[in-house]
Amino acid sequence: MVGRFAPSILFVPILPVVFAGGPDGGWHVRSISAVAGESLPAVERVAVLEGVRVAPPQSTWALAGVVGQERYTRAREHDELAAVSPGLGRPEATRAALIPMRKSEKWWALSQDDRRAILEERSHHITIGLKYLPAVARRLHHCRDLGEPFDFLAWSEFAPADVGRFDELIANLRGTEEWSYVDREVDIRLDRGAGP
Amino acid sequence: MVGRFAPSILFVPILPVVFAGGPDGGWHVRSISAVAGESLPAVERVAVLEGVRVAPPQSTWALAGVVGQERYTRAREHDELAAVSPGLGRPEATRAALIPMRKSEKWWALSQDDRRAILEERSHHITIGLKYLPAVARRLHHCRDLGEPFDFLAWSEFAPADVGRFDELIANLRGTEEWSYVDREVDIRLDRGAGP
Repeated sequence: MVGRFAPSILFVPILPVVFAGGPDGGWHVRSISAVAGESLPAVERVAVLEGVRVAPPQSTWALAGVVGQERYTRAREHDELAAVSPGLGRPEATRAALIPMRKSEKWWALSQDDRRAILEERSHHITIGLKYLPAVARRLHHCRDLGEPFDFLAWSEFAPADVGRFDELIANLRGTEEWSYVDREVDIRLDRGAGP
Repeated sequence: MVGRFAPSILFVPILPVVFAGGPDGGWHVRSISAVAGESLPAVERVAVLEGVRVAPPQSTWALAGVVGQERYTRAREHDELAAVSPGLGRPEATRAALIPMRKSEKWWALSQDDRRAILEERSHHITIGLKYLPAVARRLHHCRDLGEPFDFLAWSEFAPADVGRFDELIANLRGTEEWSYVDREVDIRLDRGAGP
């Protein structure tokens, strides 16, 4: 069984991550847009803090999540994704999107097989994402169990030349049946620049 | 889709729960046994605190988890379970077991479909549990995302006459392939009595 995971990471310890919006941080905020439900307060910068669970005191807002085990991906899909997924931190990937999302109670009341069927067999979430690899580096953070205001924090990094491709990816996802269960979504765009 | 869930709860908000071991609490500790890995310190009583995420200051140890969405159960299995599952707090269910468990990194590195196959198709976890309903009332608390020392806190309540049945249930589960991935497990038995 283990041999099947050879191309990718074998061990998946939980990595807690805090995204802190405020005056400091490695990413400059270009825009914050509410896609569904309430937005988040405007901030100048976002700090991505790995390995921590607490908000820095100077932050205007802080969103916590964890990178952990995959919740829907099948072994074959995992291997396909792992073979073409770039890591975070590529020098050319100077643009990013942080998209916090919450899904409705109706979604969470569904059984695992019903959620999986909507996510992939009917909305093609994994298949759509595959089409935009390796241009877009992605990492999903889970926060539903943490008592946070969102269920997921989706973080994506890409080159300036691929902004249009990323916009296409996210537009395709937002048109799916799965997205009809998203009841709060904020779209935060960032760059590595020093800001105005 | 919603109609299928009519016999059971439709909405599943996250319920945080803390199990606090120490001098206080509604449950008297009869025994604490390490099944795999390190045990927990001896305590007189356990308090089951719903809706909180912090340990009471007087506790010797405190384990936090959340009751949330089901992670493996299929819709048909959910309905079967819901039809025969008793609620917690039955007056006759004066005995309880709190079983904190951790699964190995090898387990968490598996994809969702591989974990599901081991859990049910090969270990019959859900099917075994069904045989002991409605004698045993159960609630599973998830804690892997919380940075806790365990991944799950399994809480079961049953009548004194059903202790043997519960022992049989847990012995059956411990013999499965799924349990070969459990690398830490503590078995805490309790009663509602005032203690010696």
